[in-house]
Amino acid sequence: MANEDQFKKVISHAKEYGYVFQSSEIYDGLSAVYDYAQNGAELKKNIRDYWWKAMVQMHDNIVGIDAAILMHPTTWKASGHVDAFNDPLIDNKDSKKRYRADVLVEEFREKIQQKIDKDITKAAKRFGDAFDEKEFRATNGNVLRRQKQIDEISTKLAKVQEENDLEGFRQLILDLGIVCPVSGSKNWTEVKQFNLMFGTKLGASAESAMDLYLRPETAQGIFVNFLNVQKTGRMKIPFGIAQTGKAFRNEIVARQFIFRMREFEQMEMQFFIKPGTQKEWFEYWKETRLKWHKSLGLGEENYRFHDHDKLAHYADAATDIEFNFPFGFKELEGIHSRTDFDLKQHEEYSGKKLQYFDHEDNANYTPYVLETSIGLDRMFLAVFSNALVEEELENNTTRTVLKLPAVLAPTKAAILPLVKKDGLPDVAKKIVEDLKWDFNVTYDEKDAVGRRYRRQDANGTPFCITVDHDTLEDNSVTIRHRDTMEQKRVKIEDLKAIIKAEVDVKHWLQKM
Amino acid sequence: MANEDQFKKVISHAKEYGYVFQSSEIYDGLSAVYDYAQNGAELKKNIRDYWWKAMVQMHDNIVGIDAAILMHPTTWKASGHVDAFNDPLIDNKDSKKRYRADVLVEEFREKIQQKIDKDITKAAKRFGDAFDEKEFRATNGNVLRRQKQIDEISTKLAKVQEENDLEGFRQLILDLGIVCPVSGSKNWTEVKQFNLMFGTKLGASAESAMDLYLRPETAQGIFVNFLNVQKTGRMKIPFGIAQTGKAFRNEIVARQFIFRMREFEQMEMQFFIKPGTQKEWFEYWKETRLKWHKSLGLGEENYRFHDHDKLAHYADAATDIEFNFPFGFKELEGIHSRTDFDLKQHEEYSGKKLQYFDHEDNANYTPYVLETSIGLDRMFLAVFSNALVEEELENNTTRTVLKLPAVLAPTKAAILPLVKKDGLPDVAKKIVEDLKWDFNVTYDEKDAVGRRYRRQDANGTPFCITVDHDTLEDNSVTIRHRDTMEQKRVKIEDLKAIIKAEVDVKHWLQKM
Repeated sequence: MANEDQFKKVISHAKEYGYVFQSSEIYDGLSAVYDYAQNGAELKKNIRDYWWKAMVQMHDNIVGIDAAILMHPTTWKASGHVDAFNDPLIDNKDSKKRYRADVLVEEFREKIQQKIDKDITKAAKRFGDAFDEKEFRATNGNVLRRQKQIDEISTKLAKVQEENDLEGFRQLILDLGIVCPVSGSKNWTEVKQFNLMFGTKLGASAESAMDLYLRPETAQGIFVNFLNVQKTGRMKIPFGIAQTGKAFRNEIVARQFIFRMREFEQMEMQFFIKPGTQKEWFEYWKETRLKWHKSLGLGEENYRFHDHDKLAHYADAATDIEFNFPFGFKELEGIHSRTDFDLKQHEEYSGKKLQYFDHEDNANYTPYVLETSIGLDRMFLAVFSNALVEEELENNTTRTVLKLPAVLAPTKAAILPLVKKDGLPDVAKKIVEDLKWDFNVTYDEKDAVGRRYRRQDANGTPFCITVDHDTLEDNSVTIRHRDTMEQKRVKIEDLKAIIKAEVDVKHWLQKM
Repeated sequence: MANEDQFKKVISHAKEYGYVFQSSEIYDGLSAVYDYAQNGAELKKNIRDYWWKAMVQMHDNIVGIDAAILMHPTTWKASGHVDAFNDPLIDNKDSKKRYRADVLVEEFREKIQQKIDKDITKAAKRFGDAFDEKEFRATNGNVLRRQKQIDEISTKLAKVQEENDLEGFRQLILDLGIVCPVSGSKNWTEVKQFNLMFGTKLGASAESAMDLYLRPETAQGIFVNFLNVQKTGRMKIPFGIAQTGKAFRNEIVARQFIFRMREFEQMEMQFFIKPGTQKEWFEYWKETRLKWHKSLGLGEENYRFHDHDKLAHYADAATDIEFNFPFGFKELEGIHSRTDFDLKQHEEYSGKKLQYFDHEDNANYTPYVLETSIGLDRMFLAVFSNALVEEELENNTTRTVLKLPAVLAPTKAAILPLVKKDGLPDVAKKIVEDLKWDFNVTYDEKDAVGRRYRRQDANGTPFCITVDHDTLEDNSVTIRHRDTMEQKRVKIEDLKAIIKAEVDVKHWLQKM
């Protein structure tokens, strides 16, 4: 499939151009953990800053905090994570391999789907223009039978998931005759719940040690600080608390590169509101967050909302902003109306009141919460995969170009002396010295200038600035735009303003 | 002591003004873990950015990365942390309390020192102007005896530490007759080594689980990525890799607020150099890092170098930049000449070559490393505690003012309508709307304007901008400087430039 190829290219480009490396690669890697390399660290930082500016700096009623990863363990009793943050796991007795029961069933179902797709592709080839997919689906016995099977599996899976029926999970696997991909046997153990939180111990002695967890979400760090922030910040409802930071989940099946990792970074905002106003704020934040995404220009057709039918226990409304990743539309950001569930739980477990006194109503209440939650790594993948393009040029060659939004690009400009002599490097370096106070810029003198342009294209650098012999006479340089490859002659003294106009956060946020 | 009082004020001001909260405070806190609140998160972020700009953006030969907290466990075998990152612990059998053996001895020694100090203070009072401390020290029997005792303890402590002599530690505690502060007994267990790394397990089943550690330092994330960064970034020696990020140490005795925490953030840079050039680079980075500190204007007298006599196993030279904290001069940043120890260790444990091909020398070598390592939380404490001042004013009142460097201040300006009517709030809000694209600003209309000035002083806001009735006529406002309390009448249209001139990173870095 073209998309799979594209995804492979994304992963290898990310490594080759210093964006993302497998973690601890010299030790053959740590599964589902990645390191951001020299360009990736800048891109990630720029995305984080772009979010922070839009959420915190631009809203007088939203403040940011930076809570620790380690929290008091009762936090996770109160939030429900100790009791209910589980995956159903099953072992194959012959291979000793462990699987997520739901994933085994999903993969089985996916294989049936693939058979249908294959039949359709074959038939389409055979019949050519005369092929009517709808008619084929409605009349082909194999397809009908398989589609029925898929529907049955989906219904049963949804039921055991809904009821958290572990024995039902196992029975479904046995009924479908699912075999272990390694041993090929159907010799399955019972299904057990496995908690996804990473545990650790605080303190020195085994007796006195306290069981801690690495936070599986950043949201709780906001809830436990709600009252302190409200009081010391003199915040009035409605107001928000935003935070970016690491979270950890001991995923059994972690995959799709940086899309689902064991260590990841979230950008979350909890907006505290008056009970009863949650519907309007839900709509407000859906719209506002989508505008933020669209401001980056990744293509409006690449976003869609996916409202949740099945709601989490804490929510009275929820939607995902899905993005068109190389592997299809998947969740990029969640907007959740969390009611007063979290604050009430913390009130119960801490024995402390987490209420707000509303001067207008002259009454105390536990606020409702509207949450916007986005995975920074997913946002990175969305931006990066969307940007990677292979273009056919007029002269029948192709170029690889990383069309990152200029505001997010790691390096804003590369300064290139046309040749390595005649004083051109000195002039180029002087430009670097001048621009580096305002932007991340780089100097490159190696190889022919055309090759350097290609290198910067693949690197995602929006501007190349070339110093040539005329520069010595006219104090002008050639500025080349990455996306259009258009070249213009401009004065050295105008460079700062020209670059700033295209990379300035303000300029991009104003598109919202 | 005045310093202790000052430290207490720092801690309570940090809470009251939304800088630092105890982590999970509603659950009575998690020991030695803190959360950065709405102002603290901004201050911390600004410090991090100031470091990143100075180190990465301003140096064409330094790049930044963002490696994961979780790393392959062999990393920590290679680095020596599994075998040698230990504290010597001892239990009191009666109280069941656990202590760091070295800290017990140090505290015992400290008490003797306090007795000396007390004698001197007393004598100074008694003799008044006639008191000569030098002579008193040289002639007073008590002081001489105690000073001798301190010297003996120091010598013995250094010896058992040097030799890692656990039985010697215990004997020293017994010889000194140290008692448990809780039970008062001398009933001590043996001394045992306790590893300071937090452990966790990756994977679902007990059999297949992999023992992981939360990284105790960020440096190793740079070393394992050295070759990938060098190759994909086409870096030429000398070059640096910088990183900011969380690290974790299961400290037994964690104290002094955010100075020594179990979860903390480092800002580290590893500079890869040609073997033999480490002395000159050591001097270069000592000087360069001190310049960075001084650019913030916290007072040159508050820094000093402390060269290490006893070097870590990986170092051939090391110095600390110490800062004058409220509890005295303590390490703020370390500059270490780490030789090729780390890269060689990783070569040995991974079986992979981590070498650099030097085109000038036409030879391969394992680079030497010069490290600069600063604790972000310590830097926060240095800036914050240094900034907190109580000033006596001319009218015999005092004001509390947080004289943060403007480049680091969380909020750059507060916009205040003189009164809450006559359209002044609208004008003030319009100024907020205009300035917020460039700076973190806030709007405040509550209380008398004098009280609002005091609030912003204590908050660390460099500028207050007041809109009054004249503003409606002349489009001018009063801008008040936090530190001088000087007020000036300026045009609204000039505000952006006036603020920018004082808060712009460029302006501050140029002082280096």
